[in-house]
Amino acid sequence: MESYEVLRDLAIILFFAKFCGVLARKCKAPQVVGQIIAGLILGPCVLGLSSQTDFITQLAEVGVIILMFEVGLETDLKELLKTGPIAFLIACAGVFVPLVMGTLLYMGFYGAAPWGSESFYKAVFIGTIMTATSVSITVASLQELGKIKSKVGTTIVSAAIIDDVIGILVLTFVIGFKNPESKPGTVLLQTIAFFAVAIVGGYIVYKVFSTLDKRYPHTRRIPIVSLAFCFALSYIAEKYFGIADITGAYIAGVVLCSLSDNEYIERKSDVISYMFFGPIFFASIGLKTSFAAMNGKLFAFCICFVIVALGAKIIGCGLVGKACKFNFSDSLKIGVGMMTRGEVALIVSQKGLAAGLLTADYFTAVILLILVSSIATPIILKLLYVRDEKKSGVAA
Amino acid sequence: MESYEVLRDLAIILFFAKFCGVLARKCKAPQVVGQIIAGLILGPCVLGLSSQTDFITQLAEVGVIILMFEVGLETDLKELLKTGPIAFLIACAGVFVPLVMGTLLYMGFYGAAPWGSESFYKAVFIGTIMTATSVSITVASLQELGKIKSKVGTTIVSAAIIDDVIGILVLTFVIGFKNPESKPGTVLLQTIAFFAVAIVGGYIVYKVFSTLDKRYPHTRRIPIVSLAFCFALSYIAEKYFGIADITGAYIAGVVLCSLSDNEYIERKSDVISYMFFGPIFFASIGLKTSFAAMNGKLFAFCICFVIVALGAKIIGCGLVGKACKFNFSDSLKIGVGMMTRGEVALIVSQKGLAAGLLTADYFTAVILLILVSSIATPIILKLLYVRDEKKSGVAA
Repeated sequence: MESYEVLRDLAIILFFAKFCGVLARKCKAPQVVGQIIAGLILGPCVLGLSSQTDFITQLAEVGVIILMFEVGLETDLKELLKTGPIAFLIACAGVFVPLVMGTLLYMGFYGAAPWGSESFYKAVFIGTIMTATSVSITVASLQELGKIKSKVGTTIVSAAIIDDVIGILVLTFVIGFKNPESKPGTVLLQTIAFFAVAIVGGYIVYKVFSTLDKRYPHTRRIPIVSLAFCFALSYIAEKYFGIADITGAYIAGVVLCSLSDNEYIERKSDVISYMFFGPIFFASIGLKTSFAAMNGKLFAFCICFVIVALGAKIIGCGLVGKACKFNFSDSLKIGVGMMTRGEVALIVSQKGLAAGLLTADYFTAVILLILVSSIATPIILKLLYVRDEKKSGVAA
Repeated sequence: MESYEVLRDLAIILFFAKFCGVLARKCKAPQVVGQIIAGLILGPCVLGLSSQTDFITQLAEVGVIILMFEVGLETDLKELLKTGPIAFLIACAGVFVPLVMGTLLYMGFYGAAPWGSESFYKAVFIGTIMTATSVSITVASLQELGKIKSKVGTTIVSAAIIDDVIGILVLTFVIGFKNPESKPGTVLLQTIAFFAVAIVGGYIVYKVFSTLDKRYPHTRRIPIVSLAFCFALSYIAEKYFGIADITGAYIAGVVLCSLSDNEYIERKSDVISYMFFGPIFFASIGLKTSFAAMNGKLFAFCICFVIVALGAKIIGCGLVGKACKFNFSDSLKIGVGMMTRGEVALIVSQKGLAAGLLTADYFTAVILLILVSSIATPIILKLLYVRDEKKSGVAA
């Protein structure tokens, strides 16, 4: 292949992904969905204008790392510690109920699998995909309603963040355990070792960056070296500890999230993400999605996957909310607020595909889940708040 | 190779390139030189920590395209038309004197070659590398001296821009002619056809962008679609007209340089360039540079290459300046101002390497030229201006 051939793919993907992204937003769906659909249309499924070359695959991999780095950077550690225990309980329920229900759903469709077998991990992986709440869509919905600073609002946001952390831990374990040579004890030890190294090393790196930041605030070296640190930690995590590289990228973001130039780093990373790597990653999901194996059973599975994924969050988080003395309406809001899925679900699926825990056929289910949840959450939340206001209006 | 292995290279290259870039600036040399040296140190020549993988090569290729797009975007068409004829004459001399002297230098070292032979084109290519003036270093030097708006200043800047255009035309011809199947007439026709298509198509694209820009000013879609247009034109140039893809990228920049959101596009492209693609491109030049073939003759060639390249610009541009009724001192300033070389010389060399017109051994000469010219130009310009002020002080 001539070196300039890659330019053709890049031009088509960037243009079409942005075009479909804007269209999606016009239809009140998230841009991400438009970009995935752009990939679907360009890919072998429909037009066949573009295909998944090695270069695009590797760019998408770099794109995922940068996206997870950004999720880490957006973490508000103080807020996380403040809302503490209740958010933690809700997050636990928000991870484990979908995890168990997703696993059972897969077994219901494809037969129960013995503990530790290959198909057991495949089932658990379907549950794992269901765990990650999308902080961004939840936050955007609550901001639009002016409820982000309410008790329900801060609880949802903190729970969504903790949810991400636990979800990534679960992913780390599932991928670690799946390796036939690995023993549960080793995986556990490696995970603990990684986090110990990440905490100690992260603290040192944080101190170095703080000093750099005070000396040279708002200079280009800060975001560039941050990005290099993110790539380095991602590599070290996967190479030396068997931890998913995206976990490393996320932790790199968390390490730097309290820097005074945090926002500056995030802004610069965001530009390379939305200008180039983001559209390529999301479109590559579409390029990879295959309808070849679509049949009645898989279609039914996709529908059930979406229903279970949404229901599990509402039930799990809502019940814990109720147990923590929120009233019925607020508990329901917490459940609905926690049910959105976004980038992280795709990133986890992508990781599963690479690890052989998932086939591309299931991407359809994940895309459908993101689409339905992102459209339904803002609408349902709005209805719940409007009903409450009417009630309190009548009561007053 | 596991997919996460690329992260290691990216981390090392980004960190080290930035580190050496900052060091270079501390030594008053351009950052670019530091980044190339970072590549040299990391590469097989010294540490062997990183090597030129396919992925890095392709990223560097995308990086070059984005850099040339930026050079195009920075063009000030109005200024160009205003300073007109004199700048045009100086630019012509600034291209043709180095072109001829570079060709003769190569023939002097490696023997005269008959017109149209392989080694004839290699000789012409050495001349071609010498043609491109670096606008950015010249502008930065003049700004620092507060002389950018003087008659000499505007003449140098306009001449440097026109120099780029003519230099790229020469590159286009040399690469076009080199293809053994191509006939001079065909190359000429293809080039004319490309520029005709670029002017007509470019005008239409410009109108579409203007409309978009008025409707949605400062939205992300503007820079993203611009980047897609740049990739598309680069691809079309190379694929359908046999014109270097970097010429396409440059023209794409020129097409969009009069948009009201031009600066916004440039800022966003600049972020992805300096955060990611730029350091990788410049470091990859270092990674590719080989000292394996270095011997007495090549070393002597490198030294002569630098002397001829600097001298040719001073003589060519200075003499035309003098002929256009500048006084001796101002003519000398014009010559010295035009002698800086930078990114474009590297991009042209890179293109020659890909086209088989140059071996990596000669990169050393180009790097040396950039290093010497970038350090010498600001110093000599300053000395000339200081001497003039002293003289006029004495006269007054």
